[in-house]
Amino acid sequence: MTALGEEMYALVERLYPLCRSITGDGVRATLDIVGEYIPLDVHEVPTGTQVLDWTVPQEWNIRDAYVADSAGHRVVDFAASSLHVLGYSVPVSATMPLSELRAHLHTLPDQPSWIPYRTSYYKPDWGFCLAQDTLDAMPDGEYEVCIDSTLEDGHLTYAEHVVHGRVPDEVIVSCHVCHPSLANDNMAGVAVATFLARALAEHTPYYTYRFIFAPGTIGAITWLARNAERVGRVRHGLVLACAGDPGGLTYKRSRRGDAEIDRVLEHVLTASERPHRIAEFTPYGYDERQYCSPGFDLGVGSLTRTPYAGYPEYHTSADNLDFVSPEAMADTLAVCREAFAVLDRNRRYLNLSPYGEPQLGRRGLYDALGGRSDTKQAQLAMLWVLNLSDGEHSLLDVAERSGLPFDTVAAAADALHGAGLVKA
Amino acid sequence: MTALGEEMYALVERLYPLCRSITGDGVRATLDIVGEYIPLDVHEVPTGTQVLDWTVPQEWNIRDAYVADSAGHRVVDFAASSLHVLGYSVPVSATMPLSELRAHLHTLPDQPSWIPYRTSYYKPDWGFCLAQDTLDAMPDGEYEVCIDSTLEDGHLTYAEHVVHGRVPDEVIVSCHVCHPSLANDNMAGVAVATFLARALAEHTPYYTYRFIFAPGTIGAITWLARNAERVGRVRHGLVLACAGDPGGLTYKRSRRGDAEIDRVLEHVLTASERPHRIAEFTPYGYDERQYCSPGFDLGVGSLTRTPYAGYPEYHTSADNLDFVSPEAMADTLAVCREAFAVLDRNRRYLNLSPYGEPQLGRRGLYDALGGRSDTKQAQLAMLWVLNLSDGEHSLLDVAERSGLPFDTVAAAADALHGAGLVKA
Amino acid sequence: MTALGEEMYALVERLYPLCRSITGDGVRATLDIVGEYIPLDVHEVPTGTQVLDWTVPQEWNIRDAYVADSAGHRVVDFAASSLHVLGYSVPVSATMPLSELRAHLHTLPDQPSWIPYRTSYYKPDWGFCLAQDTLDAMPDGEYEVCIDSTLEDGHLTYAEHVVHGRVPDEVIVSCHVCHPSLANDNMAGVAVATFLARALAEHTPYYTYRFIFAPGTIGAITWLARNAERVGRVRHGLVLACAGDPGGLTYKRSRRGDAEIDRVLEHVLTASERPHRIAEFTPYGYDERQYCSPGFDLGVGSLTRTPYAGYPEYHTSADNLDFVSPEAMADTLAVCREAFAVLDRNRRYLNLSPYGEPQLGRRGLYDALGGRSDTKQAQLAMLWVLNLSDGEHSLLDVAERSGLPFDTVAAAADALHGAGLVKA
Repeated sequence: MTALGEEMYALVERLYPLCRSITGDGVRATLDIVGEYIPLDVHEVPTGTQVLDWTVPQEWNIRDAYVADSAGHRVVDFAASSLHVLGYSVPVSATMPLSELRAHLHTLPDQPSWIPYRTSYYKPDWGFCLAQDTLDAMPDGEYEVCIDSTLEDGHLTYAEHVVHGRVPDEVIVSCHVCHPSLANDNMAGVAVATFLARALAEHTPYYTYRFIFAPGTIGAITWLARNAERVGRVRHGLVLACAGDPGGLTYKRSRRGDAEIDRVLEHVLTASERPHRIAEFTPYGYDERQYCSPGFDLGVGSLTRTPYAGYPEYHTSADNLDFVSPEAMADTLAVCREAFAVLDRNRRYLNLSPYGEPQLGRRGLYDALGGRSDTKQAQLAMLWVLNLSDGEHSLLDVAERSGLPFDTVAAAADALHGAGLVKA
Repeated sequence: MTALGEEMYALVERLYPLCRSITGDGVRATLDIVGEYIPLDVHEVPTGTQVLDWTVPQEWNIRDAYVADSAGHRVVDFAASSLHVLGYSVPVSATMPLSELRAHLHTLPDQPSWIPYRTSYYKPDWGFCLAQDTLDAMPDGEYEVCIDSTLEDGHLTYAEHVVHGRVPDEVIVSCHVCHPSLANDNMAGVAVATFLARALAEHTPYYTYRFIFAPGTIGAITWLARNAERVGRVRHGLVLACAGDPGGLTYKRSRRGDAEIDRVLEHVLTASERPHRIAEFTPYGYDERQYCSPGFDLGVGSLTRTPYAGYPEYHTSADNLDFVSPEAMADTLAVCREAFAVLDRNRRYLNLSPYGEPQLGRRGLYDALGGRSDTKQAQLAMLWVLNLSDGEHSLLDVAERSGLPFDTVAAAADALHGAGLVKA
Repeated sequence: MTALGEEMYALVERLYPLCRSITGDGVRATLDIVGEYIPLDVHEVPTGTQVLDWTVPQEWNIRDAYVADSAGHRVVDFAASSLHVLGYSVPVSATMPLSELRAHLHTLPDQPSWIPYRTSYYKPDWGFCLAQDTLDAMPDGEYEVCIDSTLEDGHLTYAEHVVHGRVPDEVIVSCHVCHPSLANDNMAGVAVATFLARALAEHTPYYTYRFIFAPGTIGAITWLARNAERVGRVRHGLVLACAGDPGGLTYKRSRRGDAEIDRVLEHVLTASERPHRIAEFTPYGYDERQYCSPGFDLGVGSLTRTPYAGYPEYHTSADNLDFVSPEAMADTLAVCREAFAVLDRNRRYLNLSPYGEPQLGRRGLYDALGGRSDTKQAQLAMLWVLNLSDGEHSLLDVAERSGLPFDTVAAAADALHGAGLVKA
């Protein structure tokens, strides 16, 4: 996995500097780079399109932004960090005293060296985000303020990548791509999703896996609005975010709380003995908010390392390339693969010989020598699958009730299926 | 609340000395006094009336009762305490030796200075209750015994007070009024109920609240027998007893165990951080026995401080005016008000925009500045109400699942209702 | 119970030496001896009979078997222990070097002085089981090998004993009788079942109790195959095994996990304050595997002392007459009797006076003197039975919810039934 971790980190390094927002060329540039790894279907949705209760806003683009002192020195410069400008700032070009400018400056007094991330998508405004230390060093006086942005009719951009499976039932993996230079939130998630898609394509999976790279909130809402019929085929899903920080993994349950994806993630995290936390659903966080709104109520959970707003670096310039690591991303990717390996094989079988045990011995499935007490796990797994395959229990149920590894149970089901003793 | 506590204590002081029983003028006098605080509908049910499996008994009244020694000195005197006479004693006027009298004397050998409370409603008998110390001081010899009581056809008396709400669905509050000079059991309960009725009337509540002041067992049975149709409108209820002792609060669940009243009381007691105990339903105690009999199975719990038979002073002369306090009654009243404030506002809403989140920002319900992690509770509460308002979850469900205060959740529901985003 | 323990031990002493297998004269001899205690219906099922997914195998009988050294000395001798021969060994008469013989010798290297128990029912094979110490003392060289067995068309033998009850609904008690000289597994179980049958016959029980003495797996499958209609009348059941070892009791739940037999055994074991363990169902162990296969899914649990494969002596020559005791068997018998006493009386009653409490006093069921707080358990039990007898709750439910002893609850139900207040 180390090599994969390094590849994912290299992808994050390329994506990190871009200035993304919920619309605009930063999103397009991001998807262009991801598209070098996996083919993407890029969708452009025009400004003004009604999407559920929302309307696609004007497209925002920015070329330059700065605050310069009376000597013309840029004390705050968009070129140094895309975080410096309030997201969706309207254009401004003015000179004003610091006293007047202050109302447009956002800082983190408690973390004086970090730049905060702020936006104003739906209320026309302009502003700069900067370190408190920078602000403290700014003498009173006149400052030149420039935001060379445009806010015009255009498009909202999102992309999809599909790994086709044996059935049309879908699993969605959703990542937000709207945040500017924040590494963990969410370029690490984008990188893990990208390499997860490549891994799933190695063998045709059972489910069809759809990866959605879209701006947060409005992007997920746009996808849901434009895929009303497809939503009925979504069986499971995962929102991937904050996938590269040094913390342990957190799985946040779907709204249902006992969806199959919830049970799978909990099983895999527990069975793998990774330190982890299982969190209940809350209607706050990432795009699980939309997928789990009561009208959809999809079985979509969220996997992060340290969760939403759970670390000091969250939504600040300290969420940078030093904050994420190849090892953490490789670990997140590994858990996703393990989980989807379970999800993809988890099915309910029906024992076709349910009255008494079928005679496994004459089918070559059972040791001939009786009396021993060290019966093999494979034989135990067959007895468990036969006993619980009444149409009510899935292989995951069998694994959990028996305490046997899911792989052993799934292999037993395959053997029984091969012997004609169970049907799917 | 201190002033209210003092007012309730003053009411208990007036009611305490009266000799109440399951019928008779003591009950009438009690209701007359309560009627000075809140208007009462007093019902008189004739002796012999069939009520469910029971029959209204003859009415019992008593004017005087004593045991006098050979010198004519009253060693046991009804005038000193209404507890001195066995409730429902038939009249007697005789002289007999102590040896013969003993069979009619009830004491508490383990609590030699306290007078027990005893009755014989349905088996004709007579007797005296007295301190063991008093009995020990009675020399052998002849005693004059007099109980000037009548047991004649008459009526069983109970009263109702109704606070009309916006809907005909009812909440009942039931207090037994049959115990003689016992302060905590149940004049404290009567006083708390009386002031609770006044408090509820300050603003028209949602539910219609019916207060029932009736003798224990036979009174509740009589009310149930005479209100067969109304019972179908009773949504919730509370039996109030032992409301003034120094112990912590105990809520005893309804037979159902998960009735809305159960969840409300548990929520309020827990949220208020009062020391308290939640007890499971038992078919023993106060009139929850009748309301929760399997044919009715109403959502009626019981609120006490120290519960039924849970304190040494229970059903003895030590349950006197020193045993109850204004502070304890004020606290019981406060919990009732808090609980009914939750119950009265607890409703299921339906999210009218259940597909994705509605855009709260353009409705002025959401901060314009994005990216901050300190989102306000009011906004979180709106997201929770929207997410769970699928017709299955009440506001109490939302409060419990979100961990937010019920008031915050109810205010969020009001705001969303005002914006047309949810309907009741 | 000590006398009963001694009687059961004496029965085990008689049964222990016999060489049993899944067919053959050892099973018949075993059933002949049990038949001296309780009348048995012995069934003979011909070789080749199809039973569910299985076929009744040829009948195996053995007269002699040994390994003799070059001096003619029998170093392994069937006459010394029936464990010495691999169960179902085909006949053999040969001389071979030890190096060739080794492939047919089974030992327990970790327990060098014990003889293991091994079988090869369905794959034709021959072999000897011996102590590792014995093998270690065998010099290289030629050995005479003799197994004087027959494997011919014949019958599978099993027996039933029925204690007729007042209803045709059945409780089955099943014991495997196929193991050779192993005392705890399962002659102790056979002995306890035998004396349990005698105890149940002392008073006509409610249920009809059917005792099944059959070889493990194939015997239970044969019984199930031949009793397809009767299975529908089996309400509860218990597989008895390992009933005499010094360990505490283990009850293994039925597949259902909450069958009435499960609740009864758990209640009795807990109420009796015996050290015990409750184990979840697994599809491995004794014949509960067959009774709880998903097609039947009977409410059949398993009672053992130390469970299946849970002790070092399991399936070795150390499971001998020293390993079992009269006291342990007497304790197992006592628990069975206590459990069936509960099971046999556990019924759902319907309160015929469910609106309010019926007036117990006028029916002589309630103390006339009111006010006391030391109400008797018998009265409390009546209130509990009345309150919960809504058709949903059994007397065991009442006992568990009230915390009252089952006997008290059952007596209350009898009293209420006698007064016409409840019906069964």
